[in-house]
Amino acid sequence: MGQALKRSTINSDRLWDALEELGRIGAFQSEHDEIMGVRRLALSDEDAAGRRLVIEWFRDAGLSIDIDQIGNAYATRPGIDNTLAPVMSGSHVDSVPSAGRFDGVLGVLGALEVIRSLNDHNITTHRPITIAFFTDEEGCRFATDMLGSAVATNRVPLEQAWSLRDADGRSVREELERIGFLGDEPVGLRKPHAFVECHVEQGPILQREGLDLGVVIGVQGISWQRLTITGASAHAGTTPLEYRRDAGLVAAKINAHMREMCTSGSFGELMLATMGVISPEPCSINVIPGRVIATVDLRNPDDTALESAERHLQAFLSELSASEGIEIESQLTARTPAVAFSPDVQSVIADTADSFGLRHRRILAGAGHDAQEWSRVCPTAMIFVPGENDGISHNPLEYSSPEQCANGINVLLNTILTLADQDS
Amino acid sequence: MGQALKRSTINSDRLWDALEELGRIGAFQSEHDEIMGVRRLALSDEDAAGRRLVIEWFRDAGLSIDIDQIGNAYATRPGIDNTLAPVMSGSHVDSVPSAGRFDGVLGVLGALEVIRSLNDHNITTHRPITIAFFTDEEGCRFATDMLGSAVATNRVPLEQAWSLRDADGRSVREELERIGFLGDEPVGLRKPHAFVECHVEQGPILQREGLDLGVVIGVQGISWQRLTITGASAHAGTTPLEYRRDAGLVAAKINAHMREMCTSGSFGELMLATMGVISPEPCSINVIPGRVIATVDLRNPDDTALESAERHLQAFLSELSASEGIEIESQLTARTPAVAFSPDVQSVIADTADSFGLRHRRILAGAGHDAQEWSRVCPTAMIFVPGENDGISHNPLEYSSPEQCANGINVLLNTILTLADQDS
Repeated sequence: MGQALKRSTINSDRLWDALEELGRIGAFQSEHDEIMGVRRLALSDEDAAGRRLVIEWFRDAGLSIDIDQIGNAYATRPGIDNTLAPVMSGSHVDSVPSAGRFDGVLGVLGALEVIRSLNDHNITTHRPITIAFFTDEEGCRFATDMLGSAVATNRVPLEQAWSLRDADGRSVREELERIGFLGDEPVGLRKPHAFVECHVEQGPILQREGLDLGVVIGVQGISWQRLTITGASAHAGTTPLEYRRDAGLVAAKINAHMREMCTSGSFGELMLATMGVISPEPCSINVIPGRVIATVDLRNPDDTALESAERHLQAFLSELSASEGIEIESQLTARTPAVAFSPDVQSVIADTADSFGLRHRRILAGAGHDAQEWSRVCPTAMIFVPGENDGISHNPLEYSSPEQCANGINVLLNTILTLADQDS
Repeated sequence: MGQALKRSTINSDRLWDALEELGRIGAFQSEHDEIMGVRRLALSDEDAAGRRLVIEWFRDAGLSIDIDQIGNAYATRPGIDNTLAPVMSGSHVDSVPSAGRFDGVLGVLGALEVIRSLNDHNITTHRPITIAFFTDEEGCRFATDMLGSAVATNRVPLEQAWSLRDADGRSVREELERIGFLGDEPVGLRKPHAFVECHVEQGPILQREGLDLGVVIGVQGISWQRLTITGASAHAGTTPLEYRRDAGLVAAKINAHMREMCTSGSFGELMLATMGVISPEPCSINVIPGRVIATVDLRNPDDTALESAERHLQAFLSELSASEGIEIESQLTARTPAVAFSPDVQSVIADTADSFGLRHRRILAGAGHDAQEWSRVCPTAMIFVPGENDGISHNPLEYSSPEQCANGINVLLNTILTLADQDS
């Protein structure tokens, strides 16, 4: 083992075939010619079919399988010393309603391909390796994302997760039971040696910069607010400027100020702010908007900077409210802290990518991932693979090439090998 | 006649009773407790009932009545010299779908009260006086406002007006015939000595400034544009600033710039600009808006300044499009020129208001009125009466007090007397 193993390679065709086969489960004809979309909502019949196919592949690879009480599947390949904590890798097979074939799936089938390659080459590792898929990462159906890994890592209590219901009133527990994935392994006990997840970037950076890989340094903290801006609806022709209380104009000033907060540097170089919803009432050409509902999405990899941005925006809203004579009510609708991944695991990934001559950079995760849950219990990092079309995702057009996927999983394989040989 | 007549007064109670009685035709219970709304869409059964009641009152006042081919009703009281052009006054009795009791009606029943008062006091005028109501001022049903007065003053051809159809496919001509108001007087022949119209302000200025009357100096020119702002929809978490093409942010910058155009003074003190419609796609908290439909409403009493504002905005949009890498398509959807009312008629109104000790100011009309059509054929001006609640209009809450209405119609009476005594 050791240095010689650092350049083991996977079977790229086999990985691609697996991606294609799983992509046929829940496939539908999308609006884009000849492009098939994927719909495998968590704990639906399609998700169940996908899970069963992957479990069958896990069994065929000689792995021992455990299902926990929230439906997470763990498949373990023994190491030389099975008293040691395993290296864990995995992601999810559930999807958003109109998805592509890579989000989550690359991390699960990539981990499977790692095991298959180790089997091919008769490689034995010091530590055991556990590959896994986690329940309802997307959160589209039961409104809580990263649900399975959040329960497995003790952030969300099992009973609370079980009692979540979809729009039709069906609970997580009922649906787990119905599809045969209400396992008996208690949740919250697994403490891996390290966790590493390969995932598509879902953003434009790697493609635009011509890079092969991203070494993920962490997940941004997110602050979501809903603003209710109340002025006075009035006639656009008969209301002089001095009597206007234009809620649309105030929303515009907030939007422009949010961009200035990003470019000012006051909250670091990676501050992001977006006004995604702008909804005036009335919405008519000759009426000054009396009320606007608008949303604020603030993101920063540094929680202190994010808090500072939140306070700054709140102060700006207060000033603006006073100067414009307009009421601005802000409601915090979501707040997730920033996650910093393990520098050690990042280094292993970066060194491994270098050994393959792959061009890479440190990158932030803009969206949520199972890895951020596991980062609370063990050293964790992620590998990002670039995607076409500015990394479009949650869309049937999502696409990473066979070579791009193979690059990511080759680095995953050799990263796992390095981590699995670590003593502590 | 002469100076002695300048202070004739109307019967305020009779005016108020007439306003109340006509307000019961097409009345409906509005969402506001105990407040009745009015719905008399042009050429509907309710409009027809309102017209018949007013015609009956005209007859009872001894007037001779003519209906023209577009359904305008003219009722004339002879003067001493009936070879002279009459002084004309009037407005409309049709309404928007959810109206109050004053818009238009005050100008028609006010003119009727002028005649009734002249009859009461046995006052004879040098010139004849014609009072009138005009077809479909609101434009809600057949999509062309000031239709009757526009046809009467040769801006809109009769055949074109007749062929306009409502949402159910019924034409103006069919509906005129159906309700018995397809008259036989040829349109486009009347050339009054002067035209004066009393109307509710429909804006906040008079009430906020504690004034009794507005002497209307003209109607603003209006420029309506529909903007299609096309950027790129992208993930709010994974898209760095430098790759964003945020159509919502660009709309915000345009909105803020429009306000700066008003406050800069570059387009005069009375420049108004409003973004009433702001409609992003998608409209989701964590997605950068890829496309925004927005509207621009520019108003200015000076056509040259309005044109200059249009050119300035176009140049700003071009610069912004280039600097932000965003496509901005602008489409002119309406353009009406500014109308300047007769300084002579304004002076008569202002002097008359002074003679009653009423507080008044020169004011612009923000909305369209029949008077602006007549201003092309004879010296014209308007009297504005203040309204409660910032002059709310096109709403059941529209309200001017008996005293406010009487002030306006007292000034209308004595203005008409002065104009009717003019030789040329």
